[in-house]
Formats: sequence, C-alpha cells, structure tokens
Amino acid sequence: MDRTCRETRITVRYAETDQMGVAYYANYLVWMEVGRVEYCRAAGFRYRDMEEDGVLLTVVEASCRYLRPARYDEEILVRTWIEKATPRLVGFGYQVLRAADRGTLATGATKHVFCTRDMKPTRLPPKYRALFGI
Amino acid sequence: MDRTCRETRITVRYAETDQMGVAYYANYLVWMEVGRVEYCRAAGFRYRDMEEDGVLLTVVEASCRYLRPARYDEEILVRTWIEKATPRLVGFGYQVLRAADRGTLATGATKHVFCTRDMKPTRLPPKYRALFGI
Amino acid sequence: MDRTCRETRITVRYAETDQMGVAYYANYLVWMEVGRVEYCRAAGFRYRDMEEDGVLLTVVEASCRYLRPARYDEEILVRTWIEKATPRLVGFGYQVLRAADRGTLATGATKHVFCTRDMKPTRLPPKYRALFGI
Amino acid sequence: MDRTCRETRITVRYAETDQMGVAYYANYLVWMEVGRVEYCRAAGFRYRDMEEDGVLLTVVEASCRYLRPARYDEEILVRTWIEKATPRLVGFGYQVLRAADRGTLATGATKHVFCTRDMKPTRLPPKYRALFGI
Repeated sequence: MDRTCRETRITVRYAETDQMGVAYYANYLVWMEVGRVEYCRAAGFRYRDMEEDGVLLTVVEASCRYLRPARYDEEILVRTWIEKATPRLVGFGYQVLRAADRGTLATGATKHVFCTRDMKPTRLPPKYRALFGI
Repeated sequence: MDRTCRETRITVRYAETDQMGVAYYANYLVWMEVGRVEYCRAAGFRYRDMEEDGVLLTVVEASCRYLRPARYDEEILVRTWIEKATPRLVGFGYQVLRAADRGTLATGATKHVFCTRDMKPTRLPPKYRALFGI
Repeated sequence: MDRTCRETRITVRYAETDQMGVAYYANYLVWMEVGRVEYCRAAGFRYRDMEEDGVLLTVVEASCRYLRPARYDEEILVRTWIEKATPRLVGFGYQVLRAADRGTLATGATKHVFCTRDMKPTRLPPKYRALFGI
Repeated sequence: MDRTCRETRITVRYAETDQMGVAYYANYLVWMEVGRVEYCRAAGFRYRDMEEDGVLLTVVEASCRYLRPARYDEEILVRTWIEKATPRLVGFGYQVLRAADRGTLATGATKHVFCTRDMKPTRLPPKYRALFGI
C-alpha cells in the first residue's frame, strides 16, 4: 500500500472564519477534501475522471481533532495519506499544519466506500487499484 | 403576472458569520435561494420536481445591496417576488428584513434562464407557466 | 445531568448539495451546530448571550458517521443531547433523521472546552452549570 | 489611481459544486473576496493588517453576471482591479476566467465603505491611500 504523504497548501479565506475570529470547524472537512483530491492527482489520476467513469467515493465516516485554531489569511498545509484501502473502501488520514512553523492545527480521518452513480456500493475497478496502493 | 410576495424565516447560523462578527456577504445569495424555493412551494410546486422534470433554473445575474449587517442568531425574513417572467427567463426580487423590527438589511435580485439538464436554454413547459405568472 | 434530547428541523438547501446530488459531508457539522444552538435555547439560554458574557464553546473534536444521504429540499431533524458535561468541557451527541420516515441519516458527536475570548481554557461560570446539567 | 489588474488562481472545490454539477452561484462572491485579498497583497499590504489596525472594508454592494458555468476541479483565474477609490469607499471589478482557455466565466463588482471596528463609516487613514491608488 502506498503510504506516501501528499501536502497541499491552502490560504484560509475570510469566508471560512466565524465570529470567534478563527476558521469555522466544518471547513476542516472541506480542506480534507481538497487534500484528498490533490492526493489522487499526485497518485496519478484525477478524482473527477474516476467519477465520470462511474466510480464515486462516498464518505461514511469523518472525524477531526482540533488542536490550535487556524486564522484568516494563514497558510496551512494539509498532509494526506491512505490509512487503509481495499476494493470496497478506502480510509484517508490527514494532518493540518500551519505553514509558518509547521505546528499541528488538527488531525483527521475519513472513510469512504466506492459506489456506483446511483449510490450502490461497488468494487473498485482493477485499473484504479494500484493508484490506491491495493 | 404574480406579484405576490412570499416570506421565509431564517435564523443566522454561526457558520454564516465571519470574523467581522456579522453574516458573510455571500450568504445573502444562499438566503435568496432559500427564498426562491419557498416562493415556488407557495406558488404550488416544488423546484426539485421541476428539476427532476428536466427544467433547471440557472442563474445568469445576481446582485445585492447591503444596508445593515445581519448578526448571529438573529431571525431574518426573506421576502421574495417575481420581477419579470417569460417562457425563457425569470427575474426574482428580494428584501431581507430583521424579524425583530422589520428593518431592511438588504435588497437583491437574481435573473435566471430555463435550461435543460445539459445546460442549454429552453422554454418553460406550458404546465409551469401559470405558476410563474406567465 | 440533563439527558433531554432537543429536536431541530432543517430543510436541506440547494447550496448544501454537491455534484453527487446529495448534501455535502461538511454540512452535517453545520447542522450539528444549529442543533447545539437550539439545544441551548431550549435549555433556557442563548449561546450568543453566553458568548457576549465572555464564555466561548470551542470545539476540540467532531465526528460523524454517514448512513444514508440527505437530499435537496428534504426535511431533516437534528436530535441533540449532552453526552457529558463538566465545568471544563461538554460533549454533545447528535442524530440526523429524515423527517418523512424518521430514518437515521447520520450520527455524530462533538466535544468542546469552555474558553475565554482570547481562547484560553476556563471553567464554566456557576450560573451556567445547571443549564448543562452539571 | 492604480488600474493594475491582479490575477489569482483557484481550483474549484467539490464543496463548491451543487447538484446541477457546476459551482454554486454564491461561491463566486467568495472567489471575489480571495481576489481582493490577493489584490491587496500584491499592492503591498495585507488586508488582515489593515483590519487589525481598525480599518474594515465592509461590503455595501455586490453583483455578478454568470456567463458559463465553472466545474469541479477546473482551474479558474480571478482578475481583480480597482474601479474607483476615495477615502470613503472603494469599488472592485472582477473577471473570472477558466485557466485552460481563458474563456470568461463571470464578471462582477463589489463596493465597500471603510469602517471602524464597530461598523461606523470612517475615512481611510492617509498611510493606506496610495495602496488604493488614491
């Protein structure tokens, strides 16, 4: 399995802050999604092509631990790796860092099942397996 | 044409605030969409049924004037009406009020063209015309 | 401790869907926040008053299990309860149901620490404790 | 006045799509905000520093014309320029392009007034004026 870690750079948007003056907690899940897409791209495929091919990656679990707040206009890094992958499901792990000092802001995980366009579980077609390290 | 005005009640979410301590400006367009959907429902149809029927309402213009900020947990009202409707396009007008004192927070407008599922302009099927006051 | 469960009704917005045709996964955390606010209101206080009072509820953990997708314009119910509460932290549990048939769409949990305005952990002032069932 | 145009690159996120399969219309206002921030940075200051300095740029008008849809994972460019600037207000213009072929996806404009932290209109301090081309 491919344990390689990919790193994506994101600048915190004003839209992503809330009145507490920090990034709103749901946005970390958006950033994880950006990390996943970049992970796939770095692994050699575009998630959108896989989706056009009829294979959807539907989320079944997501979790996040928030250690330090991310602030407006800060550069953050989303490190993404595959925790586990089978032809049925894939689990991603994430670490969100502040780019300036590489301090950890959050850690997270998501689990996904491969589905057809009408949301039925399916097996990942063989041609994609190596890309997920299966 | 139906000049009736429909009113939708929304409570400002924490997610919708930004670090200025007020609702972020793009959310007014989300609230207008909520107002449009409720307008349609009150007019006798569900927008989602029209969409399942293959008729999409794609936006071509949107504008908003912001008069007073909306704050977290405030109840706001979105008043929605049809400005103009033809078999090709429809224009909605909006007024966003603070429920507590009915002070105007914002006014807005959106224009839409009717499209097929593959985003080509089309004419509104006759069965829907009366609902838009055509 | 107050094990009472509060129920909040939400209609899935178009803005909350993604191109998979279902509600985007990060929005469940937004709905949980809406559930929390309503929980507080039902328990006898407004979260915004507590925040103006200098007590912030900052999230340290969030998780969600997605069982069935939520779709555009569906009415959903967010059931919210307190899992655990001490003067330092509070944990909420959530169940997201489809209103039509009360089928469970998702379950979730968040943990929070009480903080001062400058994000330092603090103890919940005594006057708020009964409201959290402490 | 500084008529220079700054260009910001953004990749459309999955979170930004809706069930029509294209980017949701309110996100264009988020992208304009990203363009504004980058404009300021290129002009020699960080908007967040100005805000910490007690000068807020509150939006009073926003508009967008949508010409072609932006799709998931597409690279887009937000071209941003100052339309008008006085010590009281500033107007930005925007063009959103598809990076692949530089086709125009949308054009937009926002108007802002300079405000103090408690949202009262103010005059832009002299030290910031040259940065806005005043």
